[in-house]
Amino acid sequence: MELEFLHGLSQPGTSKIVLCSLDGLGGLPRPETGKSELETARIPHLHALAGRAACGLIRHVGPGITPGSGPGHLGLFGYDPLRFPVGRGVLEALGIDFELKPGDVAARGNFCTVDAQGKITDRRAGRIPTETCARLVERLRRITVEGAEVLVEPVKEHRFVLVLRGAGLSGRLSESDPQALGVAPLAVRALAPEAGRTAAMVNQFVDAARPLLRDAAPANMLLLRGFDQQPQLPRFPDTFRLRAAAIAAYPMYRGLARLVGMEVLKTGSTFADEIRTLREHWDGYDFFFLHYKDTDKAGEDGDFAAKVGALEQFDALLPQVLALKPDVLAVSGDHSTPSVLKGHGWQPVPVLVWSAYCGADPVSRFTERDCTSGTLGLLPAQDLMPHLMANALRFTKYGA
Amino acid sequence: MELEFLHGLSQPGTSKIVLCSLDGLGGLPRPETGKSELETARIPHLHALAGRAACGLIRHVGPGITPGSGPGHLGLFGYDPLRFPVGRGVLEALGIDFELKPGDVAARGNFCTVDAQGKITDRRAGRIPTETCARLVERLRRITVEGAEVLVEPVKEHRFVLVLRGAGLSGRLSESDPQALGVAPLAVRALAPEAGRTAAMVNQFVDAARPLLRDAAPANMLLLRGFDQQPQLPRFPDTFRLRAAAIAAYPMYRGLARLVGMEVLKTGSTFADEIRTLREHWDGYDFFFLHYKDTDKAGEDGDFAAKVGALEQFDALLPQVLALKPDVLAVSGDHSTPSVLKGHGWQPVPVLVWSAYCGADPVSRFTERDCTSGTLGLLPAQDLMPHLMANALRFTKYGA
Repeated sequence: MELEFLHGLSQPGTSKIVLCSLDGLGGLPRPETGKSELETARIPHLHALAGRAACGLIRHVGPGITPGSGPGHLGLFGYDPLRFPVGRGVLEALGIDFELKPGDVAARGNFCTVDAQGKITDRRAGRIPTETCARLVERLRRITVEGAEVLVEPVKEHRFVLVLRGAGLSGRLSESDPQALGVAPLAVRALAPEAGRTAAMVNQFVDAARPLLRDAAPANMLLLRGFDQQPQLPRFPDTFRLRAAAIAAYPMYRGLARLVGMEVLKTGSTFADEIRTLREHWDGYDFFFLHYKDTDKAGEDGDFAAKVGALEQFDALLPQVLALKPDVLAVSGDHSTPSVLKGHGWQPVPVLVWSAYCGADPVSRFTERDCTSGTLGLLPAQDLMPHLMANALRFTKYGA
Repeated sequence: MELEFLHGLSQPGTSKIVLCSLDGLGGLPRPETGKSELETARIPHLHALAGRAACGLIRHVGPGITPGSGPGHLGLFGYDPLRFPVGRGVLEALGIDFELKPGDVAARGNFCTVDAQGKITDRRAGRIPTETCARLVERLRRITVEGAEVLVEPVKEHRFVLVLRGAGLSGRLSESDPQALGVAPLAVRALAPEAGRTAAMVNQFVDAARPLLRDAAPANMLLLRGFDQQPQLPRFPDTFRLRAAAIAAYPMYRGLARLVGMEVLKTGSTFADEIRTLREHWDGYDFFFLHYKDTDKAGEDGDFAAKVGALEQFDALLPQVLALKPDVLAVSGDHSTPSVLKGHGWQPVPVLVWSAYCGADPVSRFTERDCTSGTLGLLPAQDLMPHLMANALRFTKYGA
């Protein structure tokens, strides 16, 4: 449904909505047991909540399509991710409170490891400490390219942001990250005629970086991806008439929330910190987006047990969210990250929506398999917000 | 999703996909037992595979819509059959390696039996031998119409192809086959203003054929349907970056595969022949479309026991396909052909998708009823290919 249409139905109110996004929530059975991470974890509070909630599976982009974190979250916020594409560079920049200006081209950078032949041996440079990243970024700041200002900012571990600022730039660029080991980083190519000059600038930057990083193993090279300029998105608080706040320990998710106009609350680095922040700001907002990163991290590492542990850790803290007595509580994720895939997957993601009006539902366990039978069915991510708004009694009737 | 979008996500790879299309797979319970053909058949290998696979039901065109074999298969190949209509005449012509030229109008012809009043008593003329068909086609080749070349080719049993070749022709024509007994063949009508001249030519052909066939009972008349000109379809191998091969004993399915650019492999007349062909060409391709006709044939004849037998025969040969160790194996069909309907039906068709990453799924029997609870849900046919591509790890992530 069109956001314009939903806006027309949206009513101000006093009800409170909490949307918990467990990053990379969905999983796959491990061959040894035939059970997924959710089916293995001891998560009594989630199962009990599923028993009282409406359940289903969210498909974020389309059948068989693996969503990145950007499209995954935009979907949860009510935006059709195919209609509103956002580059990773933009998200990454927003996530570190970097003030992008209109026309800036941002890219996500990874420090990586290359061998003597220049071939990639670790795309994340062994996840170097953030301090090492900051020190290497200092080196990159020496680089100048003709026709644009070069801005480089450290993010976390091996990640940094590159921003080119100047007139006539374009983000229609291919990535230098081949997403594979044993091959050299790729030259960046223009994907549109107007991007030729920007492509040349980026390649000039990379060529200048190579000698500067040569002695910095394991972070002796860099990869760039997700080039883009800031898009214009309808504002979430205006669309749904919600005072909306985002609580996320990780910068990228804060950036994404800011992109749609949510207020980003200052919080700590753990989920317990996030819940404390939620409690402290409970009266100030109607809608809280609460992000939990650990599930994705464990899945990306292919660590089944760690993902199970991350789920159990979330479950243990869930009662603190329930204690605030939200009118609507939703639990889902931005995409699946099955440990057996060691990366994002295309598998639909379990979702539960609890409210006093969520309806009878046969599901009593919060797993991929069980949620198949839920009353929410297999729903496009952008249909979640209308469900939450309805359960919060914040949508008026359509037609008289 | 747009094929253009899917193409952008498609990656080359080494994984192998096998798509088994059991023609007319889906059925209906017979009143005596309350069990469908799939529920009656002893198909241990299919049930076991369903237990390890993701299951669901495919809807090929829309709710309540009975697909022909053309739309049914185009859907399985990833094409929205409403966006890419193909006439049966075109498929039939391609299926006998008839080289259609742009602008040719092709129709499928049936020899049929009419009584003394000219009313149809058998739409298939008792399935006359192919040699009889060829002999009668010789007679039809004597016919000339003004303004176009008339080309007639025998196909198999009672079926032949009529092609009109000339300038300014149109395939927007109604069919002469009333699809009923006890009525006379219909005059062909123009369905668009530009088709008036072509309609007149076709009726002139039919009028000329009547006396030529009068003494040829049971094949003493003909029926024409599926008039069309060759459509322009995006090529399957380019769209999905797959080296794609089709193995089908029946000409029409070869023609359909050729229409989307698959390579058609020479094979024999039985499914065992087809599997032998599959084995022989295993290394040469990434994607195999394997067609099994017997299920549809039995269903069309209203022979419940024969359809059960055809399912059991497929099941017995399935281990030979599994032995090749495809990375992704899908089993479904192009439409249902319930024996109690004696023809194609609108009922959604069971589907299973097996891969190492197909996910946990509650279904453990490959039947219409069981597949209702599958994680693939009720999916449009054109969503199957994205699922297969994802399971083959041949799609890259969308967005960062």
